[in-house]
Amino acid sequence: MSEKLERLKTLLAEVADLNYAAALLGWDQQTYMPPGGAEARGNQLATLSRFSHDKFVSDEIGTLLDDLEKEYAGAQPDSDELRLLRLTRHNYDQQVRVPSEFVAEFAVVTSKAFEAWVEARSTSDFAIFRPHLEKVVELNQRFVSFFPPADHPYDILLDQFERGMKTAEVQAIFDELRPQQVELIQAIAAGPQVEDAFLLGDYDEKKMWDFSVQIATQFGYDWERGRQDKAAHPFTTNFSINDVRITTRFEEDKPTSMLFSTMHETGHALYELGSNQAYERTPLAGGTSLAVHESQSRMWENLVGRSLPFWEYFFPKFKEAFPTQVGQVDLPSFYKAINKVEPSLIRVNADEATYNLHIMLRLELEIGMVEGNVQVKDLPEIWNAKMDEYLGVVPPNDAKGVLQDIHWSGGTLGYFSTYALGNLISVQLWKQILKDVPNLPDQIRAGKFEGLLGWLHEHIHVHGAKFEPQELVERVTGSRINPAPYVSYLREKFSEIYGL
Amino acid sequence: MSEKLERLKTLLAEVADLNYAAALLGWDQQTYMPPGGAEARGNQLATLSRFSHDKFVSDEIGTLLDDLEKEYAGAQPDSDELRLLRLTRHNYDQQVRVPSEFVAEFAVVTSKAFEAWVEARSTSDFAIFRPHLEKVVELNQRFVSFFPPADHPYDILLDQFERGMKTAEVQAIFDELRPQQVELIQAIAAGPQVEDAFLLGDYDEKKMWDFSVQIATQFGYDWERGRQDKAAHPFTTNFSINDVRITTRFEEDKPTSMLFSTMHETGHALYELGSNQAYERTPLAGGTSLAVHESQSRMWENLVGRSLPFWEYFFPKFKEAFPTQVGQVDLPSFYKAINKVEPSLIRVNADEATYNLHIMLRLELEIGMVEGNVQVKDLPEIWNAKMDEYLGVVPPNDAKGVLQDIHWSGGTLGYFSTYALGNLISVQLWKQILKDVPNLPDQIRAGKFEGLLGWLHEHIHVHGAKFEPQELVERVTGSRINPAPYVSYLREKFSEIYGL
Repeated sequence: MSEKLERLKTLLAEVADLNYAAALLGWDQQTYMPPGGAEARGNQLATLSRFSHDKFVSDEIGTLLDDLEKEYAGAQPDSDELRLLRLTRHNYDQQVRVPSEFVAEFAVVTSKAFEAWVEARSTSDFAIFRPHLEKVVELNQRFVSFFPPADHPYDILLDQFERGMKTAEVQAIFDELRPQQVELIQAIAAGPQVEDAFLLGDYDEKKMWDFSVQIATQFGYDWERGRQDKAAHPFTTNFSINDVRITTRFEEDKPTSMLFSTMHETGHALYELGSNQAYERTPLAGGTSLAVHESQSRMWENLVGRSLPFWEYFFPKFKEAFPTQVGQVDLPSFYKAINKVEPSLIRVNADEATYNLHIMLRLELEIGMVEGNVQVKDLPEIWNAKMDEYLGVVPPNDAKGVLQDIHWSGGTLGYFSTYALGNLISVQLWKQILKDVPNLPDQIRAGKFEGLLGWLHEHIHVHGAKFEPQELVERVTGSRINPAPYVSYLREKFSEIYGL
Repeated sequence: MSEKLERLKTLLAEVADLNYAAALLGWDQQTYMPPGGAEARGNQLATLSRFSHDKFVSDEIGTLLDDLEKEYAGAQPDSDELRLLRLTRHNYDQQVRVPSEFVAEFAVVTSKAFEAWVEARSTSDFAIFRPHLEKVVELNQRFVSFFPPADHPYDILLDQFERGMKTAEVQAIFDELRPQQVELIQAIAAGPQVEDAFLLGDYDEKKMWDFSVQIATQFGYDWERGRQDKAAHPFTTNFSINDVRITTRFEEDKPTSMLFSTMHETGHALYELGSNQAYERTPLAGGTSLAVHESQSRMWENLVGRSLPFWEYFFPKFKEAFPTQVGQVDLPSFYKAINKVEPSLIRVNADEATYNLHIMLRLELEIGMVEGNVQVKDLPEIWNAKMDEYLGVVPPNDAKGVLQDIHWSGGTLGYFSTYALGNLISVQLWKQILKDVPNLPDQIRAGKFEGLLGWLHEHIHVHGAKFEPQELVERVTGSRINPAPYVSYLREKFSEIYGL
């Protein structure tokens, strides 16, 4: 390795260390930190973000990149070296435009916004959160102003999470998707509903936790390199390729959601754990984008965890764990219940058929806020009107409406659409997997997941962030992100469940 | 406040943020981190230590100190401003001598040494730890070499933990203490032993945990600003004046040790929590030295937690929690059992009468290693010989001998004597408290600790690190650290228990 590349990797490793330390501060904040620690934690996160930013946009890294790009101009286009340089350049050119003071201000504002949001949501009082969200929108607009004009200002925010993706492309995908999902939902609503009362009974939290752990273990989650804790809002985070942690929660009024939450986060974690070990402490470690990440979590949660073969294996064990709740329930009824389609208020609990509509609503609001066409003060009203329009349900209060998601309190606009894109990618990948591993359903029916994990590891996980998201999807499936397979999947699955 | 002082405080706050982040990395390493995270954690700690060091010894801080010392030359000697400058100057003059590479190397070496020690102790194989300890000794000798010659090279290490303390002074104190403690132990050994079999029975861990929590709560530990977790080696750490966490452990073969461990760590935590809030993110926050810190932990553990008034209040509750274990035991027998004096192998489980001898042994070995008169390879043999000489017991293996303590694996030489000094200070303070709050035993008998905590807060805690340790002890008790009160306390307490 060239001496300059070695030096660059040393500097990037230090930046990675700071970012990992900041990630641990965040993990602790959401799992174990006592309330008294909140103010200091905001300062610590601000200081670490700023130092990490300053270290990364240093003149030394800029010069090394210039020199190394010349040195590696003739390297293999897919070599790790060239890809590391390309990704670092992308991130550098972005971050170098952002003043250090902005980074620190962003951390302080969002730390306070998070606290305000927690209070606002618990009291369902949007007024508490409003000034903080206004500040967040203003910060995001300022962020956009650091960059040369794009096709759309929202492109700059989107690119933070989904390298290379354009607002117009997402809108085109959503425009194709929306009418077909709405049509399906209406068809389902026209017929008889499935029964799911037995899912809402009195389930023991500890037993549900143990069942979740058993599933994660069989999926292949390595407990020597990870752990599960409780958090109000489940998430996955990591401090190394070899320390990737998940969180889950137990909801009294939706006890089985813990299972799907754990499967979802395990999907994220398996992706991070699967990175090429040579990428440790470089920007190549970890998922290439949020959409590809979400394709992994949704695959394990839905394509695996809400499939019939999966429950052919697990339902007898579930009955054993919860005999009073589902002892008298048969597998087809259970399968239907966990796949019940019903327009509802809360995104994270939405079924597969309605989920993307929640995302579309958020994308429109975010674009409006960034453009300045939607005022924060009007958000609750617009939110409720759109919920009525898209899903036919209206939140009884803002806690179940505009205040439900944590994301805006963290300062992130530009993030939500990746959730829907992840759903699409998951089915595109799944089709490819079934070609390569045709007996996968039988494997799942036998509680075996090595075939699936092995395929994902080889084609997705091991590459980390080496390939751009659309490039990766195209390399693996032969086409860019495309809604058609997802729509077919939904139609087929729910036609069978609802006898359409 | 002068603009320059404000700037200095901003810079010190950033250093504090980095140090607090490093402390969280350490807390997590000892509580929740999965094994896979170990290697990355070492790197993260090394990077953060180095950055914190570099930030602190910057030219800007040096110049600010020079300027501010002139500006505040006429300030009140006890003003916070002057004391902040004095402490910062002390730390700056120390750290500026230490090269940044040394700090990072130290973090990497000790991270590996910690892992090696864990393995060495679990297999009782000193050979695994030996090369790492040799490296630690070499690093400490190198550290000493950065400083101008002191009266004794060990002074430089000691000063790290106990500002202003000299090796000769500690040796003089220990020389006075040793024969008197040995005499007491021999007198006790000559008579009949107390019965403590009922302490070694089958106690439920969860119930013991709950009882510990109840005690900590009554002591005044604020759970909104702290929490308790399990760790292999109990410790207290903090990430703010308002986020101070304790850890404890359950030992199957010594179940009640959890109570005393929690009381001990609560004592440390109350000290940190009590700092003047104005000191947040400055070097004035937190305890002034390890010895004064230990005076707090040992006071709550021993002077309170192993006293008769304390158990007059708590023993009925303890009986209620553990009826099969102590239902038939009376208070005097219980009190004697928890104060049983018996020369034993493990320092942290040693009784009050023998504890300091464990410390003296370690001090002699450390001085020998720093001088180069004791070779690491000879440590096990010397350890065992000294244990025999001082306490009349010989470890059956190195896990119960030279490998028992975590400290050397963390790179810290110069630390141990503060434990014994803390014992002495705790009794000096106690005498003063009894003068100021004469009905304290009655308060404790009624389960009331506000009087004690209030006194400690006013005279010790609130001052943080403002006063030098010996200065603080003298301000509060009228004399410097002095072994006589401790010896009287031991004689009186154990003469009564053992009928000497």
